[in-house]
Amino acid sequence: MAKVKKTPRPKAETPKGFRDYFGAEVAARKAMLDAIAEVYHLYGFEALETAAVETVEALGKFLPDVDRPNEGVFAWQEDDEDWVALRYDMTAPLARVAAQYRQDLPSPYRRYAMGPVWRNEKPGPGRFRQFYQCDADTVGAPSVAADAEICAMLSDTLEAVGIPRGDYVIRVNNRKVLDGVLEAAGLPDTDDNASTRGIVLRTIDKHDKFGDAGVRALLTEGRKDESGDFTKGAGLASEQVDLILGFVNGKGADTAATLDTLSSLVGDVAAGIEGVKELRDIAALLETQGYGPDRIVIDPAVVRGLGYYTGPVYEAELTFEVTDEKGRVREFGSVAGGGRYDDLVKRFTGQAVPATGMSIGVDRLLAALSATGRISQVEEGPVVVTVMDRDRMGDYMSMVRELRAAGIRAEVYLGNPKNFGNQLKYADKRNSPVAIIQGGDEDTRGVVQIKDLILGTKLAQNASLEEWKDRPNQYEVPRDQMVAKVRDIIESYS
Amino acid sequence: MAKVKKTPRPKAETPKGFRDYFGAEVAARKAMLDAIAEVYHLYGFEALETAAVETVEALGKFLPDVDRPNEGVFAWQEDDEDWVALRYDMTAPLARVAAQYRQDLPSPYRRYAMGPVWRNEKPGPGRFRQFYQCDADTVGAPSVAADAEICAMLSDTLEAVGIPRGDYVIRVNNRKVLDGVLEAAGLPDTDDNASTRGIVLRTIDKHDKFGDAGVRALLTEGRKDESGDFTKGAGLASEQVDLILGFVNGKGADTAATLDTLSSLVGDVAAGIEGVKELRDIAALLETQGYGPDRIVIDPAVVRGLGYYTGPVYEAELTFEVTDEKGRVREFGSVAGGGRYDDLVKRFTGQAVPATGMSIGVDRLLAALSATGRISQVEEGPVVVTVMDRDRMGDYMSMVRELRAAGIRAEVYLGNPKNFGNQLKYADKRNSPVAIIQGGDEDTRGVVQIKDLILGTKLAQNASLEEWKDRPNQYEVPRDQMVAKVRDIIESYS
Repeated sequence: MAKVKKTPRPKAETPKGFRDYFGAEVAARKAMLDAIAEVYHLYGFEALETAAVETVEALGKFLPDVDRPNEGVFAWQEDDEDWVALRYDMTAPLARVAAQYRQDLPSPYRRYAMGPVWRNEKPGPGRFRQFYQCDADTVGAPSVAADAEICAMLSDTLEAVGIPRGDYVIRVNNRKVLDGVLEAAGLPDTDDNASTRGIVLRTIDKHDKFGDAGVRALLTEGRKDESGDFTKGAGLASEQVDLILGFVNGKGADTAATLDTLSSLVGDVAAGIEGVKELRDIAALLETQGYGPDRIVIDPAVVRGLGYYTGPVYEAELTFEVTDEKGRVREFGSVAGGGRYDDLVKRFTGQAVPATGMSIGVDRLLAALSATGRISQVEEGPVVVTVMDRDRMGDYMSMVRELRAAGIRAEVYLGNPKNFGNQLKYADKRNSPVAIIQGGDEDTRGVVQIKDLILGTKLAQNASLEEWKDRPNQYEVPRDQMVAKVRDIIESYS
Repeated sequence: MAKVKKTPRPKAETPKGFRDYFGAEVAARKAMLDAIAEVYHLYGFEALETAAVETVEALGKFLPDVDRPNEGVFAWQEDDEDWVALRYDMTAPLARVAAQYRQDLPSPYRRYAMGPVWRNEKPGPGRFRQFYQCDADTVGAPSVAADAEICAMLSDTLEAVGIPRGDYVIRVNNRKVLDGVLEAAGLPDTDDNASTRGIVLRTIDKHDKFGDAGVRALLTEGRKDESGDFTKGAGLASEQVDLILGFVNGKGADTAATLDTLSSLVGDVAAGIEGVKELRDIAALLETQGYGPDRIVIDPAVVRGLGYYTGPVYEAELTFEVTDEKGRVREFGSVAGGGRYDDLVKRFTGQAVPATGMSIGVDRLLAALSATGRISQVEEGPVVVTVMDRDRMGDYMSMVRELRAAGIRAEVYLGNPKNFGNQLKYADKRNSPVAIIQGGDEDTRGVVQIKDLILGTKLAQNASLEEWKDRPNQYEVPRDQMVAKVRDIIESYS
């Protein structure tokens, strides 16, 4: 018989750009998403879970004259030749659902969605091709009350997950005000101006980085950077740039001052007047509910997303300082954003449907909670019942059972029990608070040994040495007091 | 200027074989998975969340002489030519993780995984290409104590999600006993017997359907079915079939009787004796912990999976009766299963690693909870504050805010408020318990109208008409008693 050709051993590797999440990481994200979902639910939002797979047609990732999906998605062709792909965000599936079920869904439709999305991009350090998004949107509500609601909900959400008031601010701007300012500056929304307006949008997006002078240079004659490279200017007149910079820097001492500044900038341009009124309404609605500018503030400096959204835009920033990987102290920055986009469903039905919503950067917010010590990196492990005598496994499993019945996470050591040191090493690796030991002698005497495994860590941390140093790290107690003693030890550290 | 060719409107459709989950469906599944995870966690199991994407190599879905992944997976080729695919179960990623991180993971490694898996199969009614799996496995524990633990955990899990004791049973069998029986029947595990043994395994898998007589016919001379079609027999001798059927029907009046029967069937065949001892150990370990045969029972009739597993196998069946889609009353049947498979990691490392685990059929278990009325099909909606005067939106939003602060799910109507009937229809569609109404007159008088929306449903259900019929369905209360009254109404129905 011919020898069968063997397949070489496969490599045990996570595919490039993807990663695995273990114990504490999964638990921390779940706890955060649960807290977020609770707020969303209280606000009347409903969960929606679509499949990971969408038709490429529904995702809008076909270019009109190209017969393959364009870049950025993981796509494949079905047996019937249709192209499908993994969703790259939560908005495209919402648009599809809002169109597909428009007869059945309540209107307005408030929904939230949490789950992974996939991007077919070159992976890099800290950049993954699968990550979580957490979105909340209201479809079918034309009033800016819906935008105000999203902002209030975002504020409540940040506090619910553990960002204290004062450590965050939600800034609100409005695309219509910018449109008004551009029209007042002699750049109304016409085909002729499309290119210039695009340049203005992209330039003010870099105001954070380049400052007033840089933006002015870029919008007029051009700018030479530190390396000497020259970027051609947009050729606007200085008076035009005054208006644009007046807008970006329009935040005043209080909301009234900001709105006055914006009013004067847009003059009598209808779109601008409407935009300012919307901001005024949002501020008033929030003020009535007690959300002052310490939490949600009108701030025209929010320019990110202005090119995409059609009305109000909002962005949540964490204002506490962190030290970045290069050792620089800086504000933590943005963790969520959103706005109004009224063309969501139109692509499918031809009918414009007003929609507004936000997306929380799940990994960013988790990183923020981690940076401020609000989530622990290690999960507390189970109590480990060691095995001194493998013929008495039933007794050890009964101990574990009693502990679990008392709500204490516990397990029996299931590896080879021969080497007792390995059992304690295992307990250490599991971050176990306590190990239980009962050999033949203890069994005869009706007792167990309870080893405190936290104490060593506490002493190593050295924080409150005095408190712990005289404490024994092992106790002998009667078998029927095992659960009570374990509980005592665990509670003494919590 | 030439007219730009327009893309036709995309179809708003879920891709074939996939589905969307809304509100109550998402909530019911989440509640069930949370309850399961709590039990797993208490048992010391750790969460593991791998990416949806694995290399096809790691999934083992390449045939040795084929250069495309074989069927059953959604696969695509990366830019660097590597093939990757969506995971089709939770076991393959576990095998990869157990191999990849074998230096860092605790051993034994207890892990659970919950999430969607994808199958590239022809979709059919009720058959979807994305569905949830919920697995728990212990890797690196050679002792059957690990199998006993999984069975006990499965029992606790079923009760935790709401299946009462008595409505389920977990049956345990062992592949080694079958191997022993086959060897005792003159069919030892040799190359020559491989084909016959395979036929025996596949035939006893149909014992449920064909009964003793059918299995006997199929294993000897062949069987003619009701339509007259003849299936060729395996050509075994009647004495051989006696042993095999003796095994399948080996369950006795109690565990001791079952084990005695199995002992006599395997005679002095070493593998069989070992298998019977394993079952005896499992039964003893479970008995010590109080899991009697009313919950977990040794039953050689469990044949599903015997071809795949290498040691103990287990299956959880729900024993209550349901009426199926054809009107027949039958037992609900299997919702979970598992067993020991000691070759998990070997494919990657060449080293055999013992592993045992189980998988819960998430949709099956949800269906069971639904069939017994343990999960509600509709989620209770939010209190809806209606909008009588759109200029007073701030007041309405403040009402909503007060309700939420009291933990009551609430929202303001955000659609066009002109048609008040639409607002009540909306509340109805949302399954709202209560609507709040405050027009100018009520505002002046400092009161609100509170409309009980549950009452109508209760009266329609007609269950306890006497209890509700004299109850008013609308109340006028002072504004500052709004929250208290809403709470009263909601609590009166719960």
